[in-house]
Order: sequence, then C-alpha cells, then structure tokens
Amino acid sequence: MADSAHSAPPPSAALDAIRAAVGEKGVIEGSDRAPFLHELRGRWPGETAMVVAPASVEEVARVVSICAAHGLAITPQGGNTGLVGGQIPFGREILLSLKRLNKVRDVSPLDYSMIVDAGVTLAAAQDAAREAGRLFPLSIGSEGSCQIGGVISTNAGGVNVLRYGNMRDLVLGLEVVLPNGEIWNGLKRLRKDNTGYDLKHLFIGGEGTLGIVTGAALKLYPRPREKTTIFAGLKSPDAAVALLSRAQTASGGAVTSFELMSRATLALVYKNIPDSRDPLGEKHPWCALIEFSSGREGVLREVVESLLADALEAGELDDAVIAESEAQAASFWRLRHTIPAAMFPEGGQGKFDVSAPVASVPAFLRDADAAVELVCPGARIIAFGHMGDGNIHYDVLQPPTMTKETFQGVQDDIERVVYDAIDRYQGSISAEHGVGVARRDDIARRKQPAEIAMMRAVKRALDPKGLMNPGKML
Amino acid sequence: MADSAHSAPPPSAALDAIRAAVGEKGVIEGSDRAPFLHELRGRWPGETAMVVAPASVEEVARVVSICAAHGLAITPQGGNTGLVGGQIPFGREILLSLKRLNKVRDVSPLDYSMIVDAGVTLAAAQDAAREAGRLFPLSIGSEGSCQIGGVISTNAGGVNVLRYGNMRDLVLGLEVVLPNGEIWNGLKRLRKDNTGYDLKHLFIGGEGTLGIVTGAALKLYPRPREKTTIFAGLKSPDAAVALLSRAQTASGGAVTSFELMSRATLALVYKNIPDSRDPLGEKHPWCALIEFSSGREGVLREVVESLLADALEAGELDDAVIAESEAQAASFWRLRHTIPAAMFPEGGQGKFDVSAPVASVPAFLRDADAAVELVCPGARIIAFGHMGDGNIHYDVLQPPTMTKETFQGVQDDIERVVYDAIDRYQGSISAEHGVGVARRDDIARRKQPAEIAMMRAVKRALDPKGLMNPGKML
Repeated sequence: MADSAHSAPPPSAALDAIRAAVGEKGVIEGSDRAPFLHELRGRWPGETAMVVAPASVEEVARVVSICAAHGLAITPQGGNTGLVGGQIPFGREILLSLKRLNKVRDVSPLDYSMIVDAGVTLAAAQDAAREAGRLFPLSIGSEGSCQIGGVISTNAGGVNVLRYGNMRDLVLGLEVVLPNGEIWNGLKRLRKDNTGYDLKHLFIGGEGTLGIVTGAALKLYPRPREKTTIFAGLKSPDAAVALLSRAQTASGGAVTSFELMSRATLALVYKNIPDSRDPLGEKHPWCALIEFSSGREGVLREVVESLLADALEAGELDDAVIAESEAQAASFWRLRHTIPAAMFPEGGQGKFDVSAPVASVPAFLRDADAAVELVCPGARIIAFGHMGDGNIHYDVLQPPTMTKETFQGVQDDIERVVYDAIDRYQGSISAEHGVGVARRDDIARRKQPAEIAMMRAVKRALDPKGLMNPGKML
Repeated sequence: MADSAHSAPPPSAALDAIRAAVGEKGVIEGSDRAPFLHELRGRWPGETAMVVAPASVEEVARVVSICAAHGLAITPQGGNTGLVGGQIPFGREILLSLKRLNKVRDVSPLDYSMIVDAGVTLAAAQDAAREAGRLFPLSIGSEGSCQIGGVISTNAGGVNVLRYGNMRDLVLGLEVVLPNGEIWNGLKRLRKDNTGYDLKHLFIGGEGTLGIVTGAALKLYPRPREKTTIFAGLKSPDAAVALLSRAQTASGGAVTSFELMSRATLALVYKNIPDSRDPLGEKHPWCALIEFSSGREGVLREVVESLLADALEAGELDDAVIAESEAQAASFWRLRHTIPAAMFPEGGQGKFDVSAPVASVPAFLRDADAAVELVCPGARIIAFGHMGDGNIHYDVLQPPTMTKETFQGVQDDIERVVYDAIDRYQGSISAEHGVGVARRDDIARRKQPAEIAMMRAVKRALDPKGLMNPGKML
C-alpha cells in the first residue's frame, strides 16, 4: 500500500467513508488485490491505497462523491485487459472496479437494442443478444474477460469492424457517473436524437478520464444466416487492396473481416504453434483471411466463387481455398489468432498498432520496412491485421543475431521511423489500443497543438479537479 | 442593417478588416442578401451587419480571427434549408456563408471515402460518389440545395438512416475553423483511430456553436445493384413494428427505408395533391412504404415475396403491392414526399419531429393522440415518417371548425402534452431537425440538468467568448 512519491497518502477519512458506502464486500483486500494491479504484459505494476468494487450505480456515485469531496483521484477498471496501462493506478488513485455491476438489464429484440451494466463481459453481452435471436457484433480476443464499460472507454475494435464499426458505432446511449458524483442518465435507445452536443462520444474512447461509464444501451443486429470463409494467397498488399475493393463491391458490402498476414508472420505460426499448417502450402508472400456473411441462405457461395474467379483473372489473387466446413473456417481463424503467441518465443519486440487509409497501407508498409531496416538491420517485420479497416499490427522483432540489450537501444529509433511513416499517410499511431500511459507522450508530441488544446479544454471543463484517471491519455 | 436592441453595432473597423480579407466578391450586398436572411417558413427574419462569403478555408480563418479580435459574433450558414432557425443571424452576428467553398477535393474509391468542401451541396456529393462507382447514402428532401457543412452541423438524417445511419455515422474526419481562427485539420480518412477524445462528434450536430466546419472526409459505400419497393396496408403501428422486425431478420438487414403513414395523412395527399392515388384502394388504416436494397442482383424479390407471405399469415400485414418498375416505385415515394405540401392548405399546424425506441412508437402514438384530443378536441393528427428509426413526424392540424386564433391559443398545450408523451418513452423532442432557436427553451427545460451543465461547460471551454452562433441550441 505504498504511495507514489509525488503525492500525500489519501486521507484515511476518505477511505473510511468509501468503506462505509460500499460495505465490507465492496473493498478488496490482501492477495485478492493482485489481479487488479497487474496487467497482462507486466509492464505497469499498479499501486493503490484501496481497491473498491461498488455493487450498484448508486454506490459508484457515492464513492465518486466522497472522492470529489476529498480530492481523491480514481482509476476505473473493467476486465483489466487493456494493453496501454490505462486501467492501472499508480499510487495516488484508488482503483474502482466495475465487476459487480454485471447485470444485463434489458434486451429488446424488436428495438434491436439492449441495456447492460458496465461490468458485463463482452462474451456475456454477445450471449444475451444471441438468446434473443440477435447479434451483438463486436468481437475481440479478450471477449471472455473484458467488460462492456472498458470496451466503451477504449472504443475497442476487433475483427468485425469492417462490417459493423467500432464500439463507438454500437452505442446508443450511456449512463455515466460524472466527476462530481452525479449520475448522468443518457441511456436513450434512440436511432435519432438531435437535441444538443452528442456527449456520449466524449466518454466513448475517453479512457475513464471524464467520468465512469456504469451502463450502456447497445445496438443489436440481425444474426447472419450464412458465412463463407476463404484463405487467399496474394502477391502483395497492393493486391489485397484491389481484392478487398472487388469483394466489397461484388458482394454488396458483405465482407465482415479481411485480415492480412505476411509470409514472415505465418512462418512464425507454423514454426511455433503445434499442428498449424498453411492451407495453400506456404507458397504466397502474403495471405488474407476473408469472411463474408449474409442474412440470407444460399446466396453467398456463388457470389464468392465468381468474385474469386474474376480476381484470379485480374491478377489480384494467386490462389484461394474456400472453407468447406465450420471446422475448416475455424482452422483458418486459428492461424490468425495464434500470431501473438507465435511471436512470443522470438525475443524482443517493438509492437505498433497503426492505421492508415486502406489504399495507403501498401505504401506505408514499404516506407516503414525500409526505414526500420536502416535503423535496425536484420529486424524481422511481423505485419498483419485488419486490412479491411487499414489497421495493421506492425511488430518489429529483434534480429536473431542481436542481443536484447542492443535491440532495446534502438527501440526509440524504430518507434520514431514507424510513426514518421504513419504520419506521412495521415494515419493513426494507435488504431485500436488507445493511449493510456503507453502512448501519452507520443500523442502530445504528434497531434496538432490545436487538437491537444481542445482535448485539454474539454478535460478541464468536465473534470476541473483532475480526479478521473489522472496521468492517462493527456 | 438594424442591430438588435441588446447589442452595440459591430465596430466598423472589424467590418472593414473583413472586407479587406475576403475582397469585394466575398461581401454580399443589397438585394442579394435576401436569400441568406429569409428561411423557408418565414418564421425567423434575419438581420445582420454583413453577409460574408469567403472563397477558401484560409479566408474563413482570417474572418474568424478578425471577429475574435473584435468580439464580433458569427452565424455560419450552409444552404439555408434548416427548419429551426439555427442558420439565421439576429442582428449582432455577421452571417458567414460557406457557399463558395464548393469543391470536391478528392474521391478515393479504393478507400470508400471522399473529401469535400463544406459548401458542396449534398446532391453534388452524391453525384461525385456515383461517378466513382460508389454510394454516398444520405438522402433528404433538400438535397439539391443543402450543403455538406450544414448537413454535418445539424447531423441530418433522412430516408436511409435505417441502413446507413445519420450524417454522424458517415463522417470520417473534419476540418474546422475554431473560434480563435485556428484551422483544425482533422480530415483523417481512418476507420480506426484511438488517440484521444473523438472531438469531431462535438462539431457534428453542434449547429455551428463551437466552430465552422469547412471540409469533411466522408464514408462511401458500394452501390446497391437491386432495389425492391413495396407499399403495404397495415392494421396498426403495432403491426408495423412486427413487420419491420420480420423484414430486417428475413432480409438480413437489407431494409433501407421503412416509412409509416396514417390513413389521415394519406387522405390529405389524395385530397390535395393532383394525380395521386392509393396503390391499395384506400382500405387500410395505416400504410408503409418499405424499400429493400442489395448489392447482389436477383436475390431480393424472392426474399421479399416470401417474407410478405409469412407476414400476411401472421396478421402483421393486410395487403401489399410490390413495385414492378422504377416508375411505380417512384409513384409510391411521391406519396411520401408530397405529405408536407398536402398539409399546407389545411390551416394551422403544430409540427413535431420526435423519436422513440422503435417498439415504443405505437404506445407513444396512442398516448399522444389521446392527450391532444383532450386539449384540442377535433384536432387532426397527421402522423408519418421514418418508423424504421422510431422517428415520427407528428403534426397536429387545426380542427376544421376552429378559428386560427383559437388554435394558436392551444398550441402551447398541444406541445406540452406531445412532449410529455415522448418523455414517457425516453424519446427525443427533436429527432432530426435540431434545436436552433425553435427548440432551445424546450431543451433547457426538459434535459437532465447534469447534461445541460455539461453542454454549457463544453461550449465555454471551446468558445470562451461565446462568438460562435450565439443564442442557438444553448
């Protein structure tokens, strides 16, 4: 229970008042605190005077009011799956977990909407929609443990963004406990509402710096009745851009996922993941996993076969396999999903989650590859990801002959040249993962000063005491 | 060139500096000013010291800088088609028209995006997309004259929202001249970017109160290859909710429009619009115009026929005609589009543009009808609109036997009971048209105080001098 060097310990009166507000079950003690204070990669060890888990929106509001009165800062936390340290307190903040707010409040199939507590896991939200005959389309690797509140606060993306959008696009309304402890009930389930600034968009992707999301009204979709999954071999990212555009046009926008993987990426999978094999015999410099979905049965297969034939003839495609079963489709997806694990044994990594306009991705890759080779000769580039959204996970692996220390020494140079390349294409240096503590200085350095000034003005306006997740994002 | 009572005339030094910044062609004088100062309904006559039309983003920035230095307020204006007076200056503001910023800067079919100036008309933006083999899907009645900047600032909706969303959902990035005259280049064309607050959503639907939108990066879609349009006879709005849900599920989300019209609404069309006739012989208490679209050819007709048969059997539908030609589909749409003209000769009107969760629309209609009858017996309810989005244009016509003056005297009561009904279903009192001056007091009275406080805090943070479209929205 150490405090960070730059702040006094929280007043015990405040901690006592919080304890009284949430009861004994609402305060997590001893070794039970560890899962809240350590994130996946172990990069940002957390420190806090108190881990509090209120059981209701009203309890959250009471805790925040007490903190506001005492000038005590708060780091809200969902499933603790974030990759940029945004959910970790560093001494002077209490940690407020939303895990006990875990009810699906209402599912309305006729409205194609549902209302859930912030602490409901993404998987539980998907299940609730499925049980009502509907689809909640967001899907990410951590869906079993990440929570809706965190998914909203980080505007998560994932593999279905191409068709259904990011989390931002799936939120109809929010309930938020504001920095002064007031509850804002913005849980409208409307498709149209033009009555002032659309404030929910500040909290979506706001990383908990403006308030604590406690509930959300979400959009649902009809469930697709048919899927067609293909594994394609391509000459280049340029071919992927052309193929994606053709697939979108020919299928009338039925492309749900378009995941690109370089040969070097797949080679690591085949090397390090048992029982993995290339559906196309490891012959192609680039591969794409493409999934189409349709609300009607019996129409996709023919459309896909015909567009693949056209793409072959146009030279956009070199070869492709259509999954003949769900098991085969799952085996394609397994290749994609095991990429992070396949990289693990390969030494030091510089990891970048960038995006560019889709048509600029090939040029970005050429520029970045050349620039990285200059500052770190022999570095292995593992490029893969959501090509359909222009979102590339661009990871740079330590050259096999280089020591980890030497590689550490060039990390800053690698970051600089990758970011410079993304800037040339008006891209984003954090497409999905957010800012947190990991990218805070980068954002401050690289965004237009007018935009940083607006962000700071909004922060001061809505959280004048600076108590909501301080030190994150801005 | 009168000034409003509560403010001094603008300093002539400021007006001279603006004139010098934009040149003679940039200042609109004499009788040429009239089209900028009078809006469609003649409800809010405008007054201003200067109508200025800069020719470039830089000129806009220069004008705003001069205004900031002199404390001179600005009302930005697009195509002057707004229905709530948001685009009209009332004496102390200069009027800044975006009409000369009218270039399509770039269309990128591979990125499914384009960048346009704010002064490009919606129709010109649609045309530019079409020429590139793409669809810009927003469609509203005023599309020939409304401008992209205004469409963004009012977050316009229209007939395709069900499938493609409101304008908010179609904007990838914005260029905005901020209240201090700085140009914010937020014209990113990214599908994913999590690097801080998503500030563009403050300007979308911001009604020009935070800055002046000068350019936008917009999403494009594949063009649909096939449309099926039906005209359906229904027993009730409840039947419409069930039919809509069935249509969405059975077609896999291919419903593009679902417009509901009451018998009273259509009766006025048949009475007052020459050559209009009911495709179903005026037999049904409610009718729906439903349009499906698909990116593939030859699949829709069968799906639609089969779902209509199922809906008939389930009692959700009483009869339906499928348009056999584009001309027949256009004749269905003509019925829908002539409703406002059909109401015109019928005397006084109270017009409401409300929304509720889709499944609550029938209950709202029952409640509102009963409440209006109590405060204005014999009033004719003209209910129609975008049922697919829960957005109803709920218009109350003067009873035939009542004088215009008596009807005027009950307008406030009618408004109160309609709004009370919409509040009961957590609806919106302005679904599409915005706030402007028309709904400003209503919003202030009916929104949660915490939300109004946040809106005001954001306004103060980004426009501390209060120079951007003062008196509008909040």
